[in-house]
Amino acid sequence: MKLLETINSPAELRKLPRTQLTPLAQELRHFLLDSVSKTGGHLSSNLGTVELTIALHYVFNTPHDRIVWDVGHQTYSHKILTGRRDQMHTLRQFGGVSGFPRRVESEYDTFGTAHSSTSISAALGMAQAAKIKGEQRHAIAVIGDGSMTAGMAFEALNNAGVQEDVNLLVVLNDNDMSISPPVGALNRYLARLMSGQFYAAAKNVGKSVLPGPVLELAKRFEEHAKGMVVPATMFEEFGFNYIGPIDGHDLESLIPTLENIKKLKGPQFLHVVTKKGQGYKLAEAEPILYHGTGKFNPTEGIQPAKVGKITYTEVFGNWLCDMAAADKRLVGITPAMREGSGMVGFEQKYPDRYFDVGIAEQHSVTFGAGLATEGLKPVVAIYSTFLQRAYDQLIHDVALQNLDVTFALDRAGLVGADGATHAGNYDISYLRCIPNMVVMAASDENECRQMLTTAYRYEGPAAVRYPRGAGIGAEILKELTSIEIGKGEIKREGKGVAILAFGSMVAPSVAAGAELGATVANMRFVKPLDVELVKRLAADHDYFVTVEEGCVMGGAGAAVAEALAAEGIVKPIMMLGLPDKFIDHGDPSALLAGVGLDAKGIAASIRQRFMAGEPRLVVNNT
Amino acid sequence: MKLLETINSPAELRKLPRTQLTPLAQELRHFLLDSVSKTGGHLSSNLGTVELTIALHYVFNTPHDRIVWDVGHQTYSHKILTGRRDQMHTLRQFGGVSGFPRRVESEYDTFGTAHSSTSISAALGMAQAAKIKGEQRHAIAVIGDGSMTAGMAFEALNNAGVQEDVNLLVVLNDNDMSISPPVGALNRYLARLMSGQFYAAAKNVGKSVLPGPVLELAKRFEEHAKGMVVPATMFEEFGFNYIGPIDGHDLESLIPTLENIKKLKGPQFLHVVTKKGQGYKLAEAEPILYHGTGKFNPTEGIQPAKVGKITYTEVFGNWLCDMAAADKRLVGITPAMREGSGMVGFEQKYPDRYFDVGIAEQHSVTFGAGLATEGLKPVVAIYSTFLQRAYDQLIHDVALQNLDVTFALDRAGLVGADGATHAGNYDISYLRCIPNMVVMAASDENECRQMLTTAYRYEGPAAVRYPRGAGIGAEILKELTSIEIGKGEIKREGKGVAILAFGSMVAPSVAAGAELGATVANMRFVKPLDVELVKRLAADHDYFVTVEEGCVMGGAGAAVAEALAAEGIVKPIMMLGLPDKFIDHGDPSALLAGVGLDAKGIAASIRQRFMAGEPRLVVNNT
Repeated sequence: MKLLETINSPAELRKLPRTQLTPLAQELRHFLLDSVSKTGGHLSSNLGTVELTIALHYVFNTPHDRIVWDVGHQTYSHKILTGRRDQMHTLRQFGGVSGFPRRVESEYDTFGTAHSSTSISAALGMAQAAKIKGEQRHAIAVIGDGSMTAGMAFEALNNAGVQEDVNLLVVLNDNDMSISPPVGALNRYLARLMSGQFYAAAKNVGKSVLPGPVLELAKRFEEHAKGMVVPATMFEEFGFNYIGPIDGHDLESLIPTLENIKKLKGPQFLHVVTKKGQGYKLAEAEPILYHGTGKFNPTEGIQPAKVGKITYTEVFGNWLCDMAAADKRLVGITPAMREGSGMVGFEQKYPDRYFDVGIAEQHSVTFGAGLATEGLKPVVAIYSTFLQRAYDQLIHDVALQNLDVTFALDRAGLVGADGATHAGNYDISYLRCIPNMVVMAASDENECRQMLTTAYRYEGPAAVRYPRGAGIGAEILKELTSIEIGKGEIKREGKGVAILAFGSMVAPSVAAGAELGATVANMRFVKPLDVELVKRLAADHDYFVTVEEGCVMGGAGAAVAEALAAEGIVKPIMMLGLPDKFIDHGDPSALLAGVGLDAKGIAASIRQRFMAGEPRLVVNNT
Repeated sequence: MKLLETINSPAELRKLPRTQLTPLAQELRHFLLDSVSKTGGHLSSNLGTVELTIALHYVFNTPHDRIVWDVGHQTYSHKILTGRRDQMHTLRQFGGVSGFPRRVESEYDTFGTAHSSTSISAALGMAQAAKIKGEQRHAIAVIGDGSMTAGMAFEALNNAGVQEDVNLLVVLNDNDMSISPPVGALNRYLARLMSGQFYAAAKNVGKSVLPGPVLELAKRFEEHAKGMVVPATMFEEFGFNYIGPIDGHDLESLIPTLENIKKLKGPQFLHVVTKKGQGYKLAEAEPILYHGTGKFNPTEGIQPAKVGKITYTEVFGNWLCDMAAADKRLVGITPAMREGSGMVGFEQKYPDRYFDVGIAEQHSVTFGAGLATEGLKPVVAIYSTFLQRAYDQLIHDVALQNLDVTFALDRAGLVGADGATHAGNYDISYLRCIPNMVVMAASDENECRQMLTTAYRYEGPAAVRYPRGAGIGAEILKELTSIEIGKGEIKREGKGVAILAFGSMVAPSVAAGAELGATVANMRFVKPLDVELVKRLAADHDYFVTVEEGCVMGGAGAAVAEALAAEGIVKPIMMLGLPDKFIDHGDPSALLAGVGLDAKGIAASIRQRFMAGEPRLVVNNT
């Protein structure tokens, strides 16, 4: 690590002779593997972008020039080269380095990313700002072929192609992968671009223009690049100057090409081909397995996980297969999250009813709506945070028409190491305000299965939210059983205080309730709320406490308050849930405890508000 | 209208000899012009799709075959030909025919549309459902060139192109227009496709294959169509069979082409060229003016509007120009709503700081975020209902990074004739749950201007919501004045009942308050809520009433309830707002009165709940 240890900023990198870059890449790759194997994190994508990262910081004058990394989980090399090498052991841990670029973390992190396909829009904004302000500056978006399938990337290309005089460079990092294997027509198109003579000819573009005077070269290069790909690529149709494809692991190709591009004006598009997992045989062979890892021994590789508690994702995956066996109308849809959503088994068993539509949340929902109009029963498996991408489609295409689409909302609530960008904190608020929606929150694995069955059998739009990871270890009954819509249940009888708990907060609430002698209800339904239960509890309890793993603002607690108001019931109420701020990455249970959403915190809040001598209440009724 | 009167269903249309179709088109066009001039509605786009509508229903076996009309405001001919001719005089009126396709209105309306670019996704769902169910059925998406610029359409193309054996036809209705003039690289590309020999050759495709046996023809047609456009079009790269462009007003070209396409398998793409306003000279000359009209005399055409009350849209447009004059950092962004958002003047004065990014709400927001990172001050003008399309971008790209982007939310609340699809009912709920957001609701024109200034000067994400149409006629002060963040104001002092009103509901609340002797506060800020004012009002009032033109669920009333709960204040509260259902089109003030959100309704609700003898309250505090 002799070389790498001398690099504490890109300025130092740029002082290296070019001959040192290949050994540096090797050191960096070793550092990455060593570091990620100790902390866990994204591996395959980072191994794939070592040379590209070096080349970009070597050629461009960062941070004056702006690099926007799409999705951002491939930025470990970028972090290491921009002064964060010594913090990499804190990666994705509480208080440590984020797994994604963050503006607050470094001036080199020009734009926070984590959700896919935002980079071209952001970089175009930066490039246009430079133009408006009269500054000489490059803005570079580095985007994967998976991210290119999202509509947002096309919206940006469509707009950028007509902003002819901006210094925008889009680098397509084509590794034939998103997290799941590639799907869709665009990917097929990129594969054609890479085939045969295109690629062979392109590999030497950089080298061939190296000698000779600079300006003349740039001009010739441009002509050469333009003429090289015949017929015009899709990207040229969009108004970009298309260059490539070139080998993204060959620094002798990358650096001269980027140096030439730097001299060109207007929107540039560089097509770079890389390999996920490059340089680590195990990851090259199984890039999906090594996409996001826990800790592992690099020599042994990732070992089969010991059988532990079943995750909610697995509960969903098993349910999906069982329900598909029971009902031929079931269709499963994922926006590029086959593994994350637990649909590997379903795809194997029911390939004709499985649709990975690409990173295309909007389309996934309306495609489901279209299927539903014909009497099929689509199940859209989607993370809470990614459903934000399809919010209008949920409202306008599904709910407004009251179509029978089931939403399986994984990763509801805090998600841990991925942090604020991936937190599923808002779905209760943004879903329950939409007419026709049924919204459930699962309190354990078996209830999750029952709720999925309930949502599926309900002939309208319904969502089941469940948290990341394992549940409390409840026994899962094999039957496909529904629960009654809009009905909660009492988990324990107590007095004085009624705790109305939702989803993952039922278990800690029961513990808190036991400690305090309070009644605890598992409300089950955010919408329709069990108003009868609310009234019954109001009749013989003095205080209400609502608890949810979601934002308080507009959340399930607010739903209870609305129900009380509508019924004309006046009752002291305390709403516990996630505070009105973005919560950083860290261990999920520690994060929950930190905001008072464990049994201890819930009990403490209740005691402080309602049980500490004189309650802090201003009672005022006439 | 002799011919048209005989057509009460597409089955009757299909009985006509082909020679009758051109006269029928003429009658239909006259009927349209006559009808829309009496009711108001969308004119230009409907005049442009007369022949295409006839041809589709003539060739395809509707409703067995499914037509999905993108955006849907061009479906008047479709409605007239599918049994709704006699109801067209009720268009867009309460209880009358909707201005958009609606599944509840007709079996021919296979999918409700109004927001753009959903049609390919929905039709693909239908086509795939037919495949899964083993039904022989065509699914057809009719989409304009404007709608093609939205990312969602690309997501659908990308997915459809690999579903090789579905009977999907995408008809691109290329009229070189969305509501605003066309922008973006795609449009430029389409223009190239239409230029020169392509178009000339294509116009006769239909005719040239008319004689001869059918199957052989279909095959020859396919080869012909494929070979015609060289190099391959972008749509072929996406896996579609591309046919066109053909003249969309020439039935002799349209019908044979469609008949041939009907025999082909797999995803088909027909490029049809039409003219907005076709056949009505005034609309042809000014398609934007005649896009959406009020009532007018077809002979005279639309007359300059009498100077009436200024609309909120104009308030925004004037403010934008004034603030741009005062601050060079201001950049104005619209997703294809230059006219609707009142930005015509701004574009003229500040073309370098004006960005119409196309129908691309997602990109519009993240492009703004990119500009903001460089210290510019973007103002994104967007309808409340369309911001739903950019919800994730608002959370992930703007709010999470606390970037300085101002959102001007037009059409907040009920919108009248456009109905449920366009209603801006949810923004309070879906915005206030997001950390870092400032959310204001304007109660009059001058306050709207002040709030825009306040949002603009606030160095973080802020939204100002204001309703469609004119306000109460408040005097608008020319200065650019801010108001204090998080501070409401007392509009009238009363006793007993405190009415906490938001935005457009302040005026009727003041009237109701005067009638009842109640105190009325203009809360101004949904977030941060004026908690001090809430506490002050709680101290000397018995009852709280919140009033908002937005959904009650999770809305501003819920915010007040949350504040009371957080402060430990127990107070009878009634939340007035929009009910939990989709509200159909109609006169906006009648619709508001219908849900009790006029002065009379507000007063009646308060009287009934809090003033009718014994209040209906269950008071239960210890």
